[in-house]
Amino acid sequence: MAEKIVKVGLAGFGTVGCGVAKLIAEDADAIAAKTGLRLELACVVDIDTKSARPVKLPDGILTDELDRLLDDDTIQIGVEAIGGTDAAKQVQLKMLEAGKDVVTANKAVLAEYGNELYRAAQQNGRCIAFEASCAGGIPIISAIRTGLAANNITAMYGIVNGTCNYILSNMTAKNERFCEALAEAQKKGYAEADPTLDISGGDSAHKLAILASIAFGYEITLDDIFVEGIESISKDDLCYGGEMGYCLKLLAIGEKDEQDKVSLRVHPSFIAKDGALARVGGPFNAISIFGSAVGQVTYYGRGAGMMPTASAVVADIIDVALGNSATTFSHLHLRPRNEVESLIEKIDNIISRFYIRIMCKDQPGVIAQWSKILADHQISISGALQHEGIGPENTVPVVIATHPTRQKNITAALEDMERLDVIGGKPVCIRIVDIPEDKESA
Amino acid sequence: MAEKIVKVGLAGFGTVGCGVAKLIAEDADAIAAKTGLRLELACVVDIDTKSARPVKLPDGILTDELDRLLDDDTIQIGVEAIGGTDAAKQVQLKMLEAGKDVVTANKAVLAEYGNELYRAAQQNGRCIAFEASCAGGIPIISAIRTGLAANNITAMYGIVNGTCNYILSNMTAKNERFCEALAEAQKKGYAEADPTLDISGGDSAHKLAILASIAFGYEITLDDIFVEGIESISKDDLCYGGEMGYCLKLLAIGEKDEQDKVSLRVHPSFIAKDGALARVGGPFNAISIFGSAVGQVTYYGRGAGMMPTASAVVADIIDVALGNSATTFSHLHLRPRNEVESLIEKIDNIISRFYIRIMCKDQPGVIAQWSKILADHQISISGALQHEGIGPENTVPVVIATHPTRQKNITAALEDMERLDVIGGKPVCIRIVDIPEDKESA
Repeated sequence: MAEKIVKVGLAGFGTVGCGVAKLIAEDADAIAAKTGLRLELACVVDIDTKSARPVKLPDGILTDELDRLLDDDTIQIGVEAIGGTDAAKQVQLKMLEAGKDVVTANKAVLAEYGNELYRAAQQNGRCIAFEASCAGGIPIISAIRTGLAANNITAMYGIVNGTCNYILSNMTAKNERFCEALAEAQKKGYAEADPTLDISGGDSAHKLAILASIAFGYEITLDDIFVEGIESISKDDLCYGGEMGYCLKLLAIGEKDEQDKVSLRVHPSFIAKDGALARVGGPFNAISIFGSAVGQVTYYGRGAGMMPTASAVVADIIDVALGNSATTFSHLHLRPRNEVESLIEKIDNIISRFYIRIMCKDQPGVIAQWSKILADHQISISGALQHEGIGPENTVPVVIATHPTRQKNITAALEDMERLDVIGGKPVCIRIVDIPEDKESA
Repeated sequence: MAEKIVKVGLAGFGTVGCGVAKLIAEDADAIAAKTGLRLELACVVDIDTKSARPVKLPDGILTDELDRLLDDDTIQIGVEAIGGTDAAKQVQLKMLEAGKDVVTANKAVLAEYGNELYRAAQQNGRCIAFEASCAGGIPIISAIRTGLAANNITAMYGIVNGTCNYILSNMTAKNERFCEALAEAQKKGYAEADPTLDISGGDSAHKLAILASIAFGYEITLDDIFVEGIESISKDDLCYGGEMGYCLKLLAIGEKDEQDKVSLRVHPSFIAKDGALARVGGPFNAISIFGSAVGQVTYYGRGAGMMPTASAVVADIIDVALGNSATTFSHLHLRPRNEVESLIEKIDNIISRFYIRIMCKDQPGVIAQWSKILADHQISISGALQHEGIGPENTVPVVIATHPTRQKNITAALEDMERLDVIGGKPVCIRIVDIPEDKESA
């Protein structure tokens, strides 16, 4: 079979860029045999052309001039692997204007400027492929856009940040404090020197914005997403939650109700220990999606790392070169903001179960006081836990799990509780998420 | 946006056909909004046009004449939902000759005649899309063909038959015998009246043939696959295996070594209880794939059922209508039989661990005798189990787990053991499969 040569220009020669260059160099023959496409890296642009990298490029293709990539009309596909938002956006726009299709692993720029970039691509008759932007090696974007195309997607629950999952897994398994687990994650390369974007939930929110927009077909912005990070999680709560049958994950959640209202949130979530996502350990990612026809489908794999991400980028390069991405992309229709804005559920209105820990003074009448507050706010208790023995400042931890209630009821109840003399400090509150496991009697 | 009308002809109006008709009827608007394609069911062919079905068709489109579908040039896509092999093959060939692309959920016909059908499609400039043929609602075919396209796939381990998984799950959970669990599966609709194709492993082999051919890029035939069913599994062995830390699954296994030699097999497999596939219960399916760049990716969902299968069929209809299937299909290059034949590993040569149960007479010197046989065949023991107490005919069950060894060594050792006076009956032998979990320290 005659091979079709596909020239690729790469902007950004960091971890992802190196992975892409390595994969193209090593697997070009195998890819050509399977697909008939011979991928050739024609130009690599980075401001740093000096540092040593773990991959050897063909002579003369590394440059610090973006124009060399843009002006080369033989380059059909531009890979944006710069990261960040503003510079990345400019590079993508320039690539599109120069008539190149864009492949990117950059969730931040898509979450921030995706709607604008998608429009620019459509105006230029080009496409943007972004499989690598969410959950690295798991082909989740194509699963939603093609495999589940016949489904009304009603919910998704994802562990999409490996750093947080690594930290929470270690806090649970080794009874470590947050700062200890974070330090270990940094030592092993699973967390950045500045881990803010990961541990704040921001990175998960970026991915949720992308996934929710294609799953629900809405123009989503980051402001639609409620975000709470894992920075203040105490190992005590992991223990108490564990006793109640839960493990803690940072979940990205998208839910759509029958009136097409969408709830989007990223927060620490207690989930049942025997559920599909509970066993996702260490730096792995997993996403459960619920479709009207298909029921529950769960995807599990490496969410980050040089080669898993490169795998997704090169898969996109192939898809773009085959012409499939252009077709799929031109059929990407998102409900515009003016329709979507009234369809985003505010966090106050979401219904959830809650884990609450209060530090109660060890004296008569305490239960009567806090239980009255819950009753006043129509909050029903599904479980409670109080171990014998006295804690700091003559208090004992009391842990409560609630039945489903609205967030605003809990918020009001917690404020009332905090004012009680018999309770020390601020109550701890963590959402319990009952992922509706699609399970048949086994 | 202007909608493109896509006329679909459906051959076979049984369970899958009804699901497809239902999904098109109910979701046409949503699909049009998402994709710009308006699916219209233009003709439904079945020899039975009288029986009541759970879906209402537009007037006048149900017929028992295939020619009405074939001769209608407005019908672009033919769905073959007849099942079986020979008639289904003829229908697919006629659809291709009539210039229609084919979508099918029929694994049997593809496993038996796939290479011939793919060639016929390519000769007619048409495509065959078959996402629904394997693992129903899990979009595994597109994951392998597009999402993992940049990977050298080295192994796959799948639970791809819901009937067997339901039976084995119930035997384990309820301590039931095979025939009891089978009867319950039949009562609940998870097993056919004649369950042979499922419980013999034949259905899993069909799916493995399809998955392995696209994952490894080889023209595979059913004869390449070693198949062993679950009919003779005893609940005792599920207990003993359980005590050793294993649960039993019917696995479809494809492995490729560094010399491109491929081992393909379907057999009952003891797998570690804490692995990703171990928790797949009831009628669910799951597949773990290992790619050179991506590591381990696992997909989990409903493997069968009217709507999950219909979901995959309609996804294929959309993909065909968008033109993506044609592109992907025309780039499907399988290594031809003359190259592949020497690359299929014979079952005798595969290396595995084994679970062996022998019924030993309760007398001195028995261990010395069977252990000498294992030693003579260079088989090393990794674990053993003998409970106190006497079983039938004054024998006691002795359970052994081996270190990795070649199948032919085990076969020879079992033959020698069977000849021992101190062992009653035929030894039971079940493979232990160590799925190489891609796990980082958590």
